[in-house]
Amino acid sequence: MTKKNLCYAQSGGPTAVINASAQGVIETARKHHDKIDKIFAGLNGISGILSENLIDTAYESDEAITALGYTPGAAFGSCRYKLKDPKTQKEQYDRLFEILDAHNIGYFLYNGGGDSQDTIHKISEYAKEKGYPLQCIGVPKTIDNDIPLTDTCPGYGSAAKFIATATRETYFDLRSMAASSTKVFILEVMGRHTGWLAAASGLARETEEDPPHIILMPEVAFDEDKFLNTVRAYKEKYGLCHIVVSEGARDHNGHFLFNVNAKDAFGHTRLGGVAPTIAHMIKEKLDLKYHWAVANYMQRAARHIASKTDVELAYAVGKAAVEFALEGQTAVIPVIIRESASPYQWYIESANLSDVANQEHLVPADFITENGFGITDKCREYLSPLIQGEVPPPFHQGLPAYVKLKNQLVEKKILATV
Amino acid sequence: MTKKNLCYAQSGGPTAVINASAQGVIETARKHHDKIDKIFAGLNGISGILSENLIDTAYESDEAITALGYTPGAAFGSCRYKLKDPKTQKEQYDRLFEILDAHNIGYFLYNGGGDSQDTIHKISEYAKEKGYPLQCIGVPKTIDNDIPLTDTCPGYGSAAKFIATATRETYFDLRSMAASSTKVFILEVMGRHTGWLAAASGLARETEEDPPHIILMPEVAFDEDKFLNTVRAYKEKYGLCHIVVSEGARDHNGHFLFNVNAKDAFGHTRLGGVAPTIAHMIKEKLDLKYHWAVANYMQRAARHIASKTDVELAYAVGKAAVEFALEGQTAVIPVIIRESASPYQWYIESANLSDVANQEHLVPADFITENGFGITDKCREYLSPLIQGEVPPPFHQGLPAYVKLKNQLVEKKILATV
Repeated sequence: MTKKNLCYAQSGGPTAVINASAQGVIETARKHHDKIDKIFAGLNGISGILSENLIDTAYESDEAITALGYTPGAAFGSCRYKLKDPKTQKEQYDRLFEILDAHNIGYFLYNGGGDSQDTIHKISEYAKEKGYPLQCIGVPKTIDNDIPLTDTCPGYGSAAKFIATATRETYFDLRSMAASSTKVFILEVMGRHTGWLAAASGLARETEEDPPHIILMPEVAFDEDKFLNTVRAYKEKYGLCHIVVSEGARDHNGHFLFNVNAKDAFGHTRLGGVAPTIAHMIKEKLDLKYHWAVANYMQRAARHIASKTDVELAYAVGKAAVEFALEGQTAVIPVIIRESASPYQWYIESANLSDVANQEHLVPADFITENGFGITDKCREYLSPLIQGEVPPPFHQGLPAYVKLKNQLVEKKILATV
Repeated sequence: MTKKNLCYAQSGGPTAVINASAQGVIETARKHHDKIDKIFAGLNGISGILSENLIDTAYESDEAITALGYTPGAAFGSCRYKLKDPKTQKEQYDRLFEILDAHNIGYFLYNGGGDSQDTIHKISEYAKEKGYPLQCIGVPKTIDNDIPLTDTCPGYGSAAKFIATATRETYFDLRSMAASSTKVFILEVMGRHTGWLAAASGLARETEEDPPHIILMPEVAFDEDKFLNTVRAYKEKYGLCHIVVSEGARDHNGHFLFNVNAKDAFGHTRLGGVAPTIAHMIKEKLDLKYHWAVANYMQRAARHIASKTDVELAYAVGKAAVEFALEGQTAVIPVIIRESASPYQWYIESANLSDVANQEHLVPADFITENGFGITDKCREYLSPLIQGEVPPPFHQGLPAYVKLKNQLVEKKILATV
């Protein structure tokens, strides 16, 4: 059998550990030189591949690949680009396969969230239809933790650890000031459709006095009166109130609390600034002094406080994806199956892309306390293993020393300009 | 000589390491039991002392005091309360001294920034005038780094390390996304009057391509055209622009940028947030996709990534303050004198409170690049030692394990209610 080349690419918002999956892919592929010839990476995900921008990872040293294991961001570049339906965009698919064929690509690994799994699923369907021999494997990644079937998504545990840490730390600040100054602190975290990231803040809470006192998740319709009454109650009991809010928090009509009316490439409304909205409400209605923070990219890039468990999971799904491809599987994705919570024991198995693409796994009702503002013990039991362990990056001159790859492009064969 | 009691209190916004100063004070005082009897702490700074809320730190174990060395926030509570002029508020001063006298307090240590040093200075003046034997010692603390005479203020180095780390990490995220999505990232940091915190982000920059590309400090009047042209230039050269902005950034007239568009689309007053103001400007004028974050309390509470150097400095000024008091000094503050930058060598000496109170040490002109958007090599040489070294706290169940003290109050002798 002629050896085939492998192409790996990264898609969607990066995480602190997506490069650990890349490390898992590349290190595993390098061990199977009998079956895999070149290891390419798409520059900026599928959009780069469509422009025939393929990186030859052979230029990257073993040390550089190891360093991916502690470098945040998407080392090969990512994209927000969703392939259209092959029926309407046949030309685009044909070009893609022309490029794959020209570079002898037989293994295609796509590392991303739900939208990205839809992309790789469509490609696998088209390959089958055309009879093109291509092993299409998804690699799960998203801080949103919303891919179904898998126990968790690599990337989530590290963002969760950052958020729970920030919740605890900002509370230590707030409780210092509350007697004479700031009474309310609001931390805005990501989570457009799901409250998983906001829910993670609940891990900082060991006693009733601990933060967060109120978590606002998209799964629970925001009720202003109930919210303000609860803020007031904590203020009366403890002199302060610590709040964590999902960017996707919404009211009974499904309207986001904050909405700038901008749309992203997928037609999603782009959000930002629910923290100041909540702060404004608290000032107007309760006249309490507040501070607010917006974690934004910090929460998904904070490799310096990544979860060891999460880094291990990220590596494992990358490794498994290559192994699945070599076994001849296609249209599948490695998912994590939990065997026990404490100690956290898990294994990887293969799931069908068709079962995970475009699905959203919400925070279940029995993970949310009756008043809608907290997490239950069941939720805590689920979340806790995911943030365990520390694996800080090396530091140089007081700062994390991250790697930048060479990202040397392969000569184009199809789209070369004259 | 009758043994006297010591009273220590914390004031102003907390830092990640102010409790390391408390540790330095208490551990040193405990070693001098021949001269110091009880070690009190004011609950919530001077405002607590004025209400005779004194904590007896004897209830805290040695282990708990050690744990202060890795716990953020102000463990005894802080306040924003500035004593008025003794001429107009004689009654308040008389009450304070009645309380100090009733509790046999002969050593008074106040841990805070410029305003707090003004408070302790006023108390020392009043003590002299009344002939009350009181050793008044300031302990420097502020993330703003704006106290004069000292090489740096404990608290600054750790906030600086968090900001420089967040700058580097968010850049790794931004560069992943810029090809097809977000082109501009804006990180808002504290610093109402000085740009020291924003300047610290410059430590993340090793090459021209590295972030931050633009730093906006209060020391440099904001020029919208020049700013937008520079954003555009980076966008053209590198495909993206990474911006760090001080909350106190202001225009030629000294007006804060976050007040420029005082009303939002609904006619609501905009509640802080220079980052969203800059983001809005970039969207309107350049039509570039942006993300923004506001670090707020996170930057001053992030003990998990504190600077080892900063922790050592914080401990040293606490220790020195007790030693100064025991030597019979008063109206002084320990300041840090730099002997060399690399390796960072320093010692502590005594400065007069009258020389540091109410002063503000701005970022000097030769620390800022000619275009006003960056830091010079001279600035980098000054800043670099302050963020060196890592001393993470212990972790328990995946999160930093911080201490909460008992904070057992002493029985009141003056203001006891019947």
